[in-house]
Order: sequence, then C-alpha cells, then structure tokens
Amino acid sequence: MTDQDIRLGDNQYGKAETRLVRVDRGGDRHVVTDLNVSTALAGDLSATHLTGDNAGVLPTDTQKNTVYAFARDGVGEIEAFALRLARHFVDSTPTIHRARVKIEQYRWERIGDRDHSFVRGAGTRTATVTYDGTAATVVSGVDDLVLMNTTGSEFHGFHNDEYTTLPETHDRILATAVSARWRHGAAENADWTGSHHTACRHLLDAFADTHSLSLQQTLYAMGEQVLRHRDELVEVRLSLPNKHHFLVDLSPFELDNPGEVFFAADRPYGLIEGSVVRDGAPDAGLAWW
Amino acid sequence: MTDQDIRLGDNQYGKAETRLVRVDRGGDRHVVTDLNVSTALAGDLSATHLTGDNAGVLPTDTQKNTVYAFARDGVGEIEAFALRLARHFVDSTPTIHRARVKIEQYRWERIGDRDHSFVRGAGTRTATVTYDGTAATVVSGVDDLVLMNTTGSEFHGFHNDEYTTLPETHDRILATAVSARWRHGAAENADWTGSHHTACRHLLDAFADTHSLSLQQTLYAMGEQVLRHRDELVEVRLSLPNKHHFLVDLSPFELDNPGEVFFAADRPYGLIEGSVVRDGAPDAGLAWW
Amino acid sequence: MTDQDIRLGDNQYGKAETRLVRVDRGGDRHVVTDLNVSTALAGDLSATHLTGDNAGVLPTDTQKNTVYAFARDGVGEIEAFALRLARHFVDSTPTIHRARVKIEQYRWERIGDRDHSFVRGAGTRTATVTYDGTAATVVSGVDDLVLMNTTGSEFHGFHNDEYTTLPETHDRILATAVSARWRHGAAENADWTGSHHTACRHLLDAFADTHSLSLQQTLYAMGEQVLRHRDELVEVRLSLPNKHHFLVDLSPFELDNPGEVFFAADRPYGLIEGSVVRDGAPDAGLAWW
Amino acid sequence: MTDQDIRLGDNQYGKAETRLVRVDRGGDRHVVTDLNVSTALAGDLSATHLTGDNAGVLPTDTQKNTVYAFARDGVGEIEAFALRLARHFVDSTPTIHRARVKIEQYRWERIGDRDHSFVRGAGTRTATVTYDGTAATVVSGVDDLVLMNTTGSEFHGFHNDEYTTLPETHDRILATAVSARWRHGAAENADWTGSHHTACRHLLDAFADTHSLSLQQTLYAMGEQVLRHRDELVEVRLSLPNKHHFLVDLSPFELDNPGEVFFAADRPYGLIEGSVVRDGAPDAGLAWW
Repeated sequence: MTDQDIRLGDNQYGKAETRLVRVDRGGDRHVVTDLNVSTALAGDLSATHLTGDNAGVLPTDTQKNTVYAFARDGVGEIEAFALRLARHFVDSTPTIHRARVKIEQYRWERIGDRDHSFVRGAGTRTATVTYDGTAATVVSGVDDLVLMNTTGSEFHGFHNDEYTTLPETHDRILATAVSARWRHGAAENADWTGSHHTACRHLLDAFADTHSLSLQQTLYAMGEQVLRHRDELVEVRLSLPNKHHFLVDLSPFELDNPGEVFFAADRPYGLIEGSVVRDGAPDAGLAWW
Repeated sequence: MTDQDIRLGDNQYGKAETRLVRVDRGGDRHVVTDLNVSTALAGDLSATHLTGDNAGVLPTDTQKNTVYAFARDGVGEIEAFALRLARHFVDSTPTIHRARVKIEQYRWERIGDRDHSFVRGAGTRTATVTYDGTAATVVSGVDDLVLMNTTGSEFHGFHNDEYTTLPETHDRILATAVSARWRHGAAENADWTGSHHTACRHLLDAFADTHSLSLQQTLYAMGEQVLRHRDELVEVRLSLPNKHHFLVDLSPFELDNPGEVFFAADRPYGLIEGSVVRDGAPDAGLAWW
Repeated sequence: MTDQDIRLGDNQYGKAETRLVRVDRGGDRHVVTDLNVSTALAGDLSATHLTGDNAGVLPTDTQKNTVYAFARDGVGEIEAFALRLARHFVDSTPTIHRARVKIEQYRWERIGDRDHSFVRGAGTRTATVTYDGTAATVVSGVDDLVLMNTTGSEFHGFHNDEYTTLPETHDRILATAVSARWRHGAAENADWTGSHHTACRHLLDAFADTHSLSLQQTLYAMGEQVLRHRDELVEVRLSLPNKHHFLVDLSPFELDNPGEVFFAADRPYGLIEGSVVRDGAPDAGLAWW
Repeated sequence: MTDQDIRLGDNQYGKAETRLVRVDRGGDRHVVTDLNVSTALAGDLSATHLTGDNAGVLPTDTQKNTVYAFARDGVGEIEAFALRLARHFVDSTPTIHRARVKIEQYRWERIGDRDHSFVRGAGTRTATVTYDGTAATVVSGVDDLVLMNTTGSEFHGFHNDEYTTLPETHDRILATAVSARWRHGAAENADWTGSHHTACRHLLDAFADTHSLSLQQTLYAMGEQVLRHRDELVEVRLSLPNKHHFLVDLSPFELDNPGEVFFAADRPYGLIEGSVVRDGAPDAGLAWW
C-alpha cells in the first residue's frame, strides 16, 4: 500500500476548559460570571498534520489568552461572548474557516442578598456557537438539571418478546438528569438570558405537568412546550437518562410497600434521546453539542 | 517469624452507600427523602478474620435490608434514623459492640410548589452516629457547599523563607467548598433539622461577614459563630480547600486587570482544616467523619 | 402557533451501561470478560413520543435482559457480540430499524499466571456496531491510553497574532490520553482481536517514534500507520488532549531547570481531534462514536 | 455565652495535590517520576485563626515551591522525598511542629523498552510521612489495585436475624479494589522500593491463594503475609470494598447459569476495613492515612 491513498479527514483543534471567572465591580454590588470555555478551530490545517509546518496554526495557548483578553471588556451573556470569540477566530486568522465555542456557566446565588458573597447553585447553563465565516448557529442549553416526579408516570402496553420480564406499571417514580439543547433560528437575539430562563421554566413545567405514559412522551412534551412558547427557537434536543427507582420488596420482613421505599440504582439506566423540530427549520449541520 | 506475634488490630465492616429514596404519600402532597446510607459494625470479629468462621457476622446484605425495612415506618430526620439503625445493630447482635451509621441526604426542592414534582438542589446534608451499646455520639454536617467572596479577603504578613515568592495581597477572591461537621453535646434533640438549618446559615453568614486576613481566620469565625448560637453543639470541624482564583496578567495585550478577570485553578489547592471546640466538651473519640 | 408545525426529529432510546461479567469455566483455567454494554434503538417510534402508545417499544429492561441472555452462550470478541445483539434487535422487532451497540471492555491480567485470579490493567477496548437491517458498520477502539514522550517533541513556527505569548520550543514533554476509533471496511472479520492488538501497537509505536513538530502531526502519523498496516481498516479517528507539562521556573531559588522539573496541569488543555481516511472508503454516516 | 469558653482545636493546613513530574535525563535513557504531593503543617497557629496575624504561617504557595525546588536535586523514592520535605518544614519553620507529607506516584512503563516513551499503568503507589521534630513515621501503600478471584470464595454460616435473606454460597466471585497502607518500624530503610514491590506481590499472592470463607479472612491473610515476609514492617491496614458480582437469573429465558453470567453492581457495596499488627509495635498515633 502506498501513502497516496491515505488522507486527512475531518479535524479541529483548540483549547478545552479554560476556566474564567469575571467579577464586575461597577458600583458596590459585584456580579460574578463563572465560565468554562472551550474553543475548537477548523480550516486549512493539512500542513501541520502532514509535515508539522505550523504556519497556519493559531496556538491553543493563544486561544486561551484571547478568552481572557476579551473578558476584560466584560463577558455578558454567554451566547454573545461565544459569538464574539468565534467571529474573531475566523475573521482574523486566514487559515481558520470554522470556529466552535462552547461555554458552560455555573450558577452563583447571593448569600442573603449581600453584595460580594455568593453560594453556588445546581445546574449548568450552556451555549455552543458555530461560525463559518458567513453564518453563525447558536445553541443554548442546560445540563445537570435533576428532576423527579413521585407519581403521574406509567409504563405499559409495550412490545413483548421472549426476553421481556418487566411488569407493567401504572404508578412509578420518574427521575432524570436533563441535558437539553435548543437551537435559535437566528444568531441575533435581544435577550439571550430571558430566552434561557423561559426555556428552562418550560422544561420544568412540562416535565412536572405531563402525565407520562413513557419517558419518550415526556421528552416530546418538554421540547414541544419550549418551541410553542419561544418563537425564536427552531429545535430542542434532549438527552434524558431514566434514573430507575426500584420498589424494594419488603415482603420477607412481613411489610408491604405501597410505593414508599425505593432503591435508586446507578447502572444500567435507560437513555432516551430525541429532538423536537419546528417544521421548515434550517438544518443544523455541524452546530450541535 | 511465627504467627503468634501477629494479631488483628482495629477493624470494622458494613454496607456502604445504600441508596434509599422514601416517598411520604400522606395526603396529596408528597415528601421526598433521598439518602445514601453507610453502616459499619465493630465488635468480636476475630473468628471471621482468623478462621473464616462467620457465626458472629451479620451480613452486609442484612444491614442493607435493615435500612430499607426501617424506612417502611418513615425515615424522618437523618440523625434520628441513624440513631435508630445504630442502636438496632448493637442491641440486637451479640457480637457487635459498636455501630457507625453515616447518612448523606440530597436536597430536593419543589418545582413551582407542586405536590409531586421536584428539582435537586446543591449541597448535601450529613449525619454520622456512633453507638457503643451505652452512649451515642451524633455529628451533623454539610458537604459541597461552594462559597465565594469577591472582596473582603487579604493575605499578608506571612512567614517568608527562601522558597517564598507569593506577593502580599490586600484584596483577593476567597472561594471554598465547605465540608463541615458539628458535634452535638447529647444524642437527643428535639429539632435536628432546625439545628441543621441554623448551623448552615451561621456558616454562610460568618463566611460572608468575616473580613478575612487568612482562610484560617475565616474557618475559626465560622466554627465560633455556630457554637455561639447553638448551645446544643460542642464542636465544629471544617475542611476548607482554598480554591485559588489567580488574576490573569493581561499586560501583554496592553490591558490592565483591576481585579476583574481570573483563572480558576484546579490543582494544587490550599487545604485548611481545623476544629473549634467548646471548653469542657467531652472528647469525641471515634465519632468523627 | 399551532401543533402542526412541530414534529419529532431524530431519536433513539436504549439501556446504557449494562455491566456484564462473563466467566468461562471450561477446563480449569478461567477466562474473564468484563464489559459495559449500551444499546440504542431507533425506528418507528412516533407513537410513544406523541401519544404514549408503547406498542412499538421494546423496553430498555428487555434490552438489558437480552444482553445477559445472549452472554449465556458465550461472549467472545466484543465486535462479534455487538453485531449479534444489533442484528437481533432490528431483525426481531418490527418497529426497530436501526440498532447501535457500544461495548467497553476492561482489561484483566492473570496474577502470576494463576488460573482463577486476576488484576485489572489500564486502558479500555471499545466496539461500536450500527446495523440498519441491511448493512452493519463496525468501529473498534481504545480509550484511556495515557502516553508520554519526554523528548522528541517541538512546537514552533506557528501563527502569531496580538494575543500570542507562547514561546517557541524545541524540546517539550508531549503527553496525551488517547481516545481512538477505527472503522472496519467490512462487518466480517476473522480476527477482531488480532486486529485490535495490532492497531493498538501501531498507535503506540507511531506515538513513540514520530519526532513531533505538533500534536497534529503525531495524530496523523498514528492514524496513517494503523491504516498502512491494517488493510481491513478504512478510517481512524483520534481525540488527543494535549496534557500540558509546564517547566517550573526555579530561578527565584537560584536553580536552573534544564528540562527536569515540570508542573502537570489539569485545565485548560489542548484538544486535537482528527480523522485519517483511506481514499475511496465508504462514508461512515451515523456509525461513529 | 461568652467567647472565652470557645477555643481552637486540632488544625493543620497545607498545599494539596501539587502535581510534579520529574524527568531524569542522565544518559540517554530517561526516567519519569510522576507525583501528586500534599503537604500539611501543624504547630503554633493560633494567631492566624484568632486574629489573622500570619507571622507564623508559611504560605501554602511556599510549600508548593519547596516541592518543586527540592525536586531539582532529584526525587528518588517517594518515602525518602516525603521525609526530606517533612523534616525541612519542621526544622526550618519555628512555628511548625509537625508536618505530614502524602505522595501518590503514578506508574509509567516503557513503550517497547524505548528510552523516552512511556505508557501509564494501573495502580498508585503511596507514601505518608509524619515528622514531629523528633521522630518520623513512614507509611507506604498502594491504591486502586483491582483484583478478582473467579472461584475459591465462599460465604456461609453467618449470623441470621429477621432481616437476613442472603442465601449461603459455596462458590462466588470475590472482587475488590485494594487500598493498602503498611507502616515501617523505622524511618530509615535502605530499599523503600524493594520493600514496596515485595509487599505488593505478597498482597496479590495472598489474595489469590487464600481459599476465602469471608473477605475478612482474605484481608487478614493479606496483612499477615506481608508482615511475615517483611521484617521492616509493623502494621498493615487494608480497606477492601466487596465489589459484588450477582449471578443473573436466566431462568425466565429457560437458561441455566452455572456461575457464568454476572451483573457487576456499583452500589451498595460491602466495605471491609481492618489492621494487622505485629505484637509490640509502637502505636501509630497520628501517622495514618
């Protein structure tokens, strides 16, 4: 076999997990922005792969520096900050034709409404921006949102084959750790944060208010409710582990267990993944996750 | 060398991390109790170590069963549940002379005040009970309480040796992830939960309100404030990682950085550990952590 | 807005991380197969999403049962086991049109060549099989293969912009944790295990023997060497974190540091991802990762 | 309540998890030493806790610098390096009366016996040294040594109470992840590494060769075998999770399961902890773990 029939395929490179904390000190009341920023660049990068010629490579160290330097002017909303970074890398580096910037934002709440003291909350806000020199795609999301309904969930009428032993249930615990992403129809938005908070609220409400016959049904209801209420969004993707809670058999101890004592299992777990799309929405291409 | 001069030293055994979720369905408004329970028993256990004679061994599987069976009657406050379990193991098993029960409780908050729907919050409440057949020691606590002050923290006037390069600072970020344990003076308490919530609030308040010249000073202030306000407690132990936030040098980019852009480092980290004790408190012995 | 313009997009569901340990007891010399199996099915699943009608849903619990039941006849090579499972799910369930089965295999080595005693080794072998009722795609791989070259790595001649401060280096530590996947040209193979071990050896050899001007160059060399030596493979994908080792500045202590004392950093890290492809290879479609 | 009856209890502070990689380049054949070093100092530290007066505080940043500076002269065996650091901190800092230095060492093996290329292996070697200005205690150990016997393990004849449902077994899988610590009788040793490797081999051999009636019996056999063969050691402590492997019930599928197909569970797990001691050994005091 000769070299000629082997070639470089898809590739990208960048700096992952740059931990940036920005303190806005304007006035006496500080604001904290706590981020984990990952950048990934693609373009005309054959030379470094094939010969080690790095003339077209913007170092990942420089990408990190850029994150910190851009933060000097303020970070603001993570979607806007990611857009600013992605455009910069593509527009200022001749060899780079696509940038993807992913940001995780950690929640901090004030301790007793104090000006300078904070306690970290649960859940992570995310944004992923992909820019190709012409168009940008913005995907917002949330991770590690752990939810539970203690009733209002059933699972029955499923397909049976010779390996099926699961009993039907008309009342179970439904618990999951939501990873959600929602795609914006345009890369401009007057209110990324309002959009984020409303989308999160609808995810929570739909999870809580859907009488569930399957986690798939709950998934669809969550995505649909977000799209119905947020015209600026065109697609919602959800990855929902089914965190099983098994009713413990207490009969050896001469005790009943009317839906009260559960074993929360780790592995295996169900994993339900799906997308809810607005008809006619443009294809997402490479923008996801 | 002969066998005779080698012997069994300290030992204990048990079932670790039994995941128990209890749903109280009394009335229409469900209450969720989500626990991770670890039991450890000690006593006259030489036979199983030396010869494999298990006649004195209550299986760890039985310990797990006991956790679930006891939950059937209700769990209530974790300190009380741990006491109930610890006393049971020692009082009903002839060979067992000491039981230690550790419980972690995860926080669930209602979604929009609904009756059956919950979202998991940050921070873990803990209880450790040690019972020796006569007396019980109860230690309550909290883990993973992540705190930050964006100002009001200094560090200077420290000892310098030939390896010291740290500049003095009069304004830094102080951030930590609190692991706290507080010991009760007695094993009976009318209100474990009230005690817990008040202790947590004082930890937060003392962290926020102490103008800090060292994380040690903050640690002592946190412990002292809890002891001052909670007569039922006799000792507070704190383990406080100093989660360093380093000011990024933006001067290569001709930018200043007046305390606004930070790199949040992972490792290494400072680790400050200490105990604050009420004078005359009985010794804790084996009861800790 | 009406319902009609919102629809279900891509979706799949399954049982993730079924932990299966198979002991082959034929003869006196036991063989251990230690797996983590994840199944994901896709097909005609609109009903469960839209109405909760589960008639087309093979429960994830059944998928788990199938993994264990199929293991009764022996597991063998993970690529073959994944193929067997994937074909079963699609061929026996009318609504299911695609199955993806991912398996991680943990390494166990004999303790002193004993028959029944084992110690776990480093690195994880992986296989992902996708079957659509007609054709199957098989991707093999390895995770958590942590490598280091202490010399023979340079990085210079890179693109400089106003945010570049990285000095050029002609001798650095190059360290990474390899995640590699390689795609087979056909779903039949007489010797999956031989293919796996040879591919791994070539990854190691190419990492070690490439005088590296960039981690991208090393990545390409690793993929190319595998493809050159393994005709049955058509593509290699690599995800290589650049685990930075920074030379510590010891000059404040009047010490030099000629490439001997390093700080191994956690975050941020470079992340180099790329694919090396045999020309004319069929497109992978959905089969990856 | 007044301040006077509250006081500072036990305390220590230091720098945790300083990641040090040392490359010995003498000759053409490099040697890699990859460490995670944690230092903790105690002494006359009331002032910083009570008033924030840091005059007696050697900064944790200085402790980190010291680790790196001392590595310039070579690291050698981790027990010796920890002793050197512990003695330095106490002997050179007036306020510091006790130092504890913990080191984890990661294993690197040569790739094909090359001079500069390495692959990381499984298992972590540890050392903990405590020095109080007069005497030093040295504890060596190993973490994350994952072991399995596929036969030769029984569990029966145990104590039954009303919550016992576990069937007796005469053939089970016994699997654990060993955390072991062994204490040296003296702080000087001509061959820490030889001692380490021999102790590890005896742990493995005793695990493999003990026909086990309980994990406690295996634990004792492991400790005893180390002490019998290593005169320089006076105590062995072991923490052994019982990583349960449950036989899967395949009878619903009309399959038997003669000890071949297992579910490897995560939680809960048994946890067996114990110490084996040489008679007349001095007490360990604070030196452990």
